[in-house]
Amino acid sequence: MPKAPGVGTPASMRELNQRAVLERLRAGGAATRPRIAADTGLSKPTVGQALLDLEQHGLVRTAGRTVAGPGRAAVVYEVNPAAGYVLGVDIGRGLIRAAVADLSGDVVARLDRPNKARSSSALLRTVRDCAEEAVGAARLRLPELVATVVGTPGVPDPSSATLHQAPNLPGWERTGLLNELRLVMGTDLIVENDANLAAIGEHEAGAARGVDVFVCLTVGTGIGMGIVVNGSLFRGAHGAAGEVGYLPYGWPPPGTPPRQGRLESAAAADSVVALAAEQGLSVPTAKEVFELAREGDQRALRVVEEEAERLAFVVSSVTAVIDPALVVLGGGIGKNIDLLAEPLNRALANATPLRPEIVPSQLGEEAALTGAITIAVRTARDVVFDRRAAGGN
Amino acid sequence: MPKAPGVGTPASMRELNQRAVLERLRAGGAATRPRIAADTGLSKPTVGQALLDLEQHGLVRTAGRTVAGPGRAAVVYEVNPAAGYVLGVDIGRGLIRAAVADLSGDVVARLDRPNKARSSSALLRTVRDCAEEAVGAARLRLPELVATVVGTPGVPDPSSATLHQAPNLPGWERTGLLNELRLVMGTDLIVENDANLAAIGEHEAGAARGVDVFVCLTVGTGIGMGIVVNGSLFRGAHGAAGEVGYLPYGWPPPGTPPRQGRLESAAAADSVVALAAEQGLSVPTAKEVFELAREGDQRALRVVEEEAERLAFVVSSVTAVIDPALVVLGGGIGKNIDLLAEPLNRALANATPLRPEIVPSQLGEEAALTGAITIAVRTARDVVFDRRAAGGN
Repeated sequence: MPKAPGVGTPASMRELNQRAVLERLRAGGAATRPRIAADTGLSKPTVGQALLDLEQHGLVRTAGRTVAGPGRAAVVYEVNPAAGYVLGVDIGRGLIRAAVADLSGDVVARLDRPNKARSSSALLRTVRDCAEEAVGAARLRLPELVATVVGTPGVPDPSSATLHQAPNLPGWERTGLLNELRLVMGTDLIVENDANLAAIGEHEAGAARGVDVFVCLTVGTGIGMGIVVNGSLFRGAHGAAGEVGYLPYGWPPPGTPPRQGRLESAAAADSVVALAAEQGLSVPTAKEVFELAREGDQRALRVVEEEAERLAFVVSSVTAVIDPALVVLGGGIGKNIDLLAEPLNRALANATPLRPEIVPSQLGEEAALTGAITIAVRTARDVVFDRRAAGGN
Repeated sequence: MPKAPGVGTPASMRELNQRAVLERLRAGGAATRPRIAADTGLSKPTVGQALLDLEQHGLVRTAGRTVAGPGRAAVVYEVNPAAGYVLGVDIGRGLIRAAVADLSGDVVARLDRPNKARSSSALLRTVRDCAEEAVGAARLRLPELVATVVGTPGVPDPSSATLHQAPNLPGWERTGLLNELRLVMGTDLIVENDANLAAIGEHEAGAARGVDVFVCLTVGTGIGMGIVVNGSLFRGAHGAAGEVGYLPYGWPPPGTPPRQGRLESAAAADSVVALAAEQGLSVPTAKEVFELAREGDQRALRVVEEEAERLAFVVSSVTAVIDPALVVLGGGIGKNIDLLAEPLNRALANATPLRPEIVPSQLGEEAALTGAITIAVRTARDVVFDRRAAGGN
């Protein structure tokens, strides 16, 4: 039986009212006291008291006065974005991205650093240096941040402080790695799968705005997928939801299980290069295969067709299980949707009557970082409110 | 901006308090006023007023007095299960099941009728007769029911009042069928996919009690799967989540899409009979194949092994997408877990490092009906509360 402490008591009502007013200002923008009262259903005196409380706690500030309309000019209130700052970091195999943002999500500092680390210790140092530099550029120090979210390949396992299924970063599956990350960052942090963060980013500011049930499929060095339901991540029972690299492509399975998932082996960047080699095309990266295809090279076009069919296997599987409204396709491979869309949809039409819309990522390589900032801001709002308003009552 | 009508006003507080007290009695069983106050955090006078209101509306009743402890004997309150009744119906290809239950979920009437219908009209009549008989046995009439939930194969599409993906019942995909069902039943009703209901049933009273993220895979005449997350169904964007019959088994897809999903064609009951025929075993039903396998017949055992491998494809796909803690296996084929488990787990071990626990259904062929009653009771509780308490204020 869940307890409902303080239901109907004055203290909790006061806090509830503050939250309602703050939420109104966040979602609906700056407003006057009567406007807030009309929108929330609270009485004007109640709104007035809540605004006073919130202003005292530094969570809300005045933003001038109304100029139009009859009667006295009314004070306009808005949320105070400077009530706290957050940090987002996206650890990629090639690049570390970092951004500092205020509580409204506006980025105040942003930088990239190449990832040349060949060990987990070196990577931890690079991440710390990158974070410190971004925070310094915002004239802050790491301990002043209200929330920090770090995106990485792999499945974070809080019980063992370890990342699972992260074979593409050297030493990154080491036991206790998440504790080491906390230690070098000198701050508490949320670690989240990068494909999950990309999905949150596309929902907040990209191709999936307003979509209730969708997936964001990132195909590049590896394959990852984030599932978002009503604005929140769906993680599954052990945080491994969306690990579609493990889909049973090429069934029945021959021999022992591979280190990398079978679908990932068949459809990530390396396999595009391998498929090209089979066609007699000797190119160092998948990028060149897509460039050649764009120029009309028949062998490259056959590789693209084969890759699209493998991605159709993923979309078809995902659709049979969770029926998303939308598949956002991103990553170094996925971004070539101009070439992939037609053969992908053709393969799907042969496979299944259930077909989601497939659209390109709007945020591209910024998607995971945007998601990190989004989750950091959501977390920080609660922390700041609890610290200042509730603690101050 | 969602409006929060009436936050902090006395009328809504009174209703919130009634709900809190009612929920406490439902979840925690009969209790005295001080006990309820301690468990909910409400004051004793507030609890007293809420109990008075609820008793007047017929939602709560007294259940005697405490006998032990110091001081005066206190009145014990409990929910009044007779505040309303619900109907659950499960439409199967061979059998229609119906049950009437009170608001505590206790079944007060229960009956089965064979489904001999060869058209949708005939099936509609059979369902209506079966429902009327069950309701009559409970000394009620259909219009007196607070909620009715009907389970059926297929994906209900509310926008067109039609069932999609229901090829195994003749005429059942007819446009507007759901309106016809409402018409013959003479009452509003919720229509839900039967595999979804089975999942809810196993969560409420079967193999998945207390499990946050699980799937219930029903393999029989067809293949269906319900996904339950924190006690609620996950339906996807168009209600087709769990339609794993459409998983891309046998990829790449040859030719045009089949009427039935490829995985369903490969793993439902008919395919077990077909696999047996390939082994030179001429048996009329899948049931006999499993019986022969249990007697040690080598050809039947090879069929079981092949079927288990196909089910491993399903489990492996589902796990890569949503990472469930548990797979509950049921249905005429799925119930043979004594034979299927070992080859299924062997195939999974070769396929993927992500492996959920696989357990047999506990409710068997009653699972969907139990789920129908569960959802009907949940719906009815809200309806009855809104009608009586809120309307009565």
